[in-house]
Amino acid sequence: MTYETRSLAESAPAGTDRTEAAPAGADFLQLNIGDAPAGGRSDWLAQHLRLAIADGRLPVGSRLPATRVLAGELRVSRGVITEAYQRLSEDGHVAGHGRNGTVVVAAPVTALPDTPADPPPPPPSTLFTAPPDTDVFDSLRAAPARIDLSPGVPDLAAFPRAAWLRAERTVLKELSASALGYGDPRGAPALRVAVADWLARTRGIRADPGDIVIVAGTAQTITLLGQILRGDGIRTMAVEDPGSLGARHHLHNAGLDTPPVPVDADGIRVDELRATGAPAVLLTPAHQFPTGVVLGGERRRELMRWATERDGLIVEDDYDAEHRYDRAPVPALRSLLAEHVCYAGSVSKLLAPALRIGWVLAPPKYRDALVAAKRYADLGNATLPQLVLAQLMESGALERQLRLLRGRHRRHRDAMITAIKAHLPHAVVHGAAAGLHLTITFDAGFHDTDLAAAALARGVKVQPLSWHRRRAHRPGLVLGYAAPTATDIAEGIATLGDVLRRLP
Amino acid sequence: MTYETRSLAESAPAGTDRTEAAPAGADFLQLNIGDAPAGGRSDWLAQHLRLAIADGRLPVGSRLPATRVLAGELRVSRGVITEAYQRLSEDGHVAGHGRNGTVVVAAPVTALPDTPADPPPPPPSTLFTAPPDTDVFDSLRAAPARIDLSPGVPDLAAFPRAAWLRAERTVLKELSASALGYGDPRGAPALRVAVADWLARTRGIRADPGDIVIVAGTAQTITLLGQILRGDGIRTMAVEDPGSLGARHHLHNAGLDTPPVPVDADGIRVDELRATGAPAVLLTPAHQFPTGVVLGGERRRELMRWATERDGLIVEDDYDAEHRYDRAPVPALRSLLAEHVCYAGSVSKLLAPALRIGWVLAPPKYRDALVAAKRYADLGNATLPQLVLAQLMESGALERQLRLLRGRHRRHRDAMITAIKAHLPHAVVHGAAAGLHLTITFDAGFHDTDLAAAALARGVKVQPLSWHRRRAHRPGLVLGYAAPTATDIAEGIATLGDVLRRLP
Repeated sequence: MTYETRSLAESAPAGTDRTEAAPAGADFLQLNIGDAPAGGRSDWLAQHLRLAIADGRLPVGSRLPATRVLAGELRVSRGVITEAYQRLSEDGHVAGHGRNGTVVVAAPVTALPDTPADPPPPPPSTLFTAPPDTDVFDSLRAAPARIDLSPGVPDLAAFPRAAWLRAERTVLKELSASALGYGDPRGAPALRVAVADWLARTRGIRADPGDIVIVAGTAQTITLLGQILRGDGIRTMAVEDPGSLGARHHLHNAGLDTPPVPVDADGIRVDELRATGAPAVLLTPAHQFPTGVVLGGERRRELMRWATERDGLIVEDDYDAEHRYDRAPVPALRSLLAEHVCYAGSVSKLLAPALRIGWVLAPPKYRDALVAAKRYADLGNATLPQLVLAQLMESGALERQLRLLRGRHRRHRDAMITAIKAHLPHAVVHGAAAGLHLTITFDAGFHDTDLAAAALARGVKVQPLSWHRRRAHRPGLVLGYAAPTATDIAEGIATLGDVLRRLP
Repeated sequence: MTYETRSLAESAPAGTDRTEAAPAGADFLQLNIGDAPAGGRSDWLAQHLRLAIADGRLPVGSRLPATRVLAGELRVSRGVITEAYQRLSEDGHVAGHGRNGTVVVAAPVTALPDTPADPPPPPPSTLFTAPPDTDVFDSLRAAPARIDLSPGVPDLAAFPRAAWLRAERTVLKELSASALGYGDPRGAPALRVAVADWLARTRGIRADPGDIVIVAGTAQTITLLGQILRGDGIRTMAVEDPGSLGARHHLHNAGLDTPPVPVDADGIRVDELRATGAPAVLLTPAHQFPTGVVLGGERRRELMRWATERDGLIVEDDYDAEHRYDRAPVPALRSLLAEHVCYAGSVSKLLAPALRIGWVLAPPKYRDALVAAKRYADLGNATLPQLVLAQLMESGALERQLRLLRGRHRRHRDAMITAIKAHLPHAVVHGAAAGLHLTITFDAGFHDTDLAAAALARGVKVQPLSWHRRRAHRPGLVLGYAAPTATDIAEGIATLGDVLRRLP
């Protein structure tokens, strides 16, 4: 996505507006060039555009006015505009796209100046006041912020770009032409073998590669499984409380009710699960989301009894089990009771969510239905990335990446805990021995949605614990520490502390 | 996937069998080493294994016995076995996978010897006698064959591996870390802009990039759309007859009835469509599958009237419109009536089905529902391949690829027509001016499924026309010419001629 000056000259021909949220040609951003310092007009313009991208006035996907048009409006030479656009392009905020002009492609992640000319407006007021439905969840994800402490992603700056490219070169060199055709809906045989090895090595699961289905992440697993279960007459899947809001959205969309089951210091309360009467349950036993609790030994045995006696189904979402800092992860439930456990893993927390690669081990009775559901969903995952991943798994590169990530994440976590001690001294930290996030709770009477809203207005994105919790509870936040830098973490937590002190 | 001798030593430890269709350790393939010529035992064994892979006794995904075990059973030195496996590995038929032993990864595509020691058995007898349901369709796709004349794939040997790798390098170099997180379920903005440009340039469609949804191919489009239509109370989508069997399978799975509407020399009979009362229809107007007919001008106007008067929905499957040899493709229906047309395209016929990338332009009233359906399906396509494709589109590499493909496909088509004239002189050829396949029909009284079955028994894979047609019709075949070489095409058609002469 290099920036081409050429494209500017061609942008925005009259009458061909095809922008998503088109900034008006007239009075664009209410800029007053008289405010710009002499000799610094390009800088001044670039900075105003960055702010407008950051606060959402210029959303991702919108198009900047043609240089010719904006130069005319501001009464400056076209070179001033071109130079400002060029800076934004070098930042990675905009890209030139041939006849389509210059388009906003990314919101800034660097710190904004302390005293912007126009302070960004607060986020849409419904974001933390409405029920957290899918739209609200997506809006938070899309909302611009200086510092993003959302949970759920690993350190994306550590993605092994060079190793990925090397493996892709090998794959493209060795691939047969026929492998570029329609493939097995279960996924590439080489990746299923590599995943079987990986699960044996890291999660204690013995699986036949023929039983593994490669999917587009755990979101797809839940959707496919929901279809299968409805076909089998199952309309209820219990979930942990607190538990992932996103997973709950997916289950509801699949037509399943989700009675909540409390989680205590040993994990899900199996007696309460039994009391719901639900025939299925979605669990995060290795590192409960968001509390970080590990399912205890007696609780595991109790759960096994529940599944066996009731012919119950356990969906094991093993989302970040590999990321432990204190000891080896506990074995997967699947390794104990294959008949009753549908195991779901992915590379979203190991490499990157953008890869959209995961795997499922269905219980034998749902195996064929899962393959059929995956076939009808999309005929199987794309082949090249599967083969690249298989290379990374078989060569040991993925294990090296995991070791590297563990070190980085631990340092990020330590930075977050240090900052919490300094700036949020009354917060209680939960589940910090593993994973990519921690949870803090407060023994106080405010709404955590108000805290999250006020933080976002100050450019810091966090998720309120209440989004992930349905019973009455203390206010809290779920804080991801993997993706931001240690500096961002410290600054973000300091901002939270300041915001909390000013809460009414 | 290089072959490692090391892995053999570790393969198949006792009691850890995890093969998909495990060849028995005892009496493996009923080999009798006494038949092998002295000094040629490795060759003899390798040849027998190739045959077993070709005829399905050793399916893709199955594991070969450990060298130690097989050497013991055949009473030869282990070096004989290792050498035979090594040859198969060099062929690309098997690969060593660490602790998992040696696994069959591809069936042979080279010609088999004329007089194999054991002639391969005929294909499963149900393949062309049972109704062509999904399992049968998949079985044919998976069935080994010397020469594959199935329709539906471009020349995969022409896939631009070097250009793909170069573009991937650029993408990995320029990508922001945050782009590796969860993205817009509609797809990467850069690709949506590139597709909008592509559609404007090649298909006469003006589309806002914000309205384009990137999907995992047209199979996913049909499944997502089926969900949306059912939610809107629509349970019927008329289809062309003849028309794609695979599309029909997907529509049925999505819960839609598919009344057939006859196709004549001008395309679908709109009067007959009207008579079905169906509120929606799936069409291939630019190059009807499988007849190759182009929807005529008057028929297009009639169809527009139908859609407007009835508030009908047209799903335009534009699967191979770019592949015309005689003239520019006709504009897409979407370019005429965006309100009533859901446009579906993909790179499956431009680059490779294995990429699983396509795009949809929904009518405005279904736009938001489509985005939601895609979100719940898989949170959006994988990002890296989207950005690579965007590079190839914006740089002109995809257009160069298309020009290259057109030349290659035309030569393949000419080779097929020449061979048909020579070996099937009574066949009538349909729809040869465009696309990746042609259809032949016979003015005779046999069943085309019998012809396809007999051809497969001789190692040549074709699809009977009756699979794609529901009303009474003459026997015929649908023959893909894009993927096989000109030599394979000539040999395959010659075999068909021979098979036809011997039909009872």
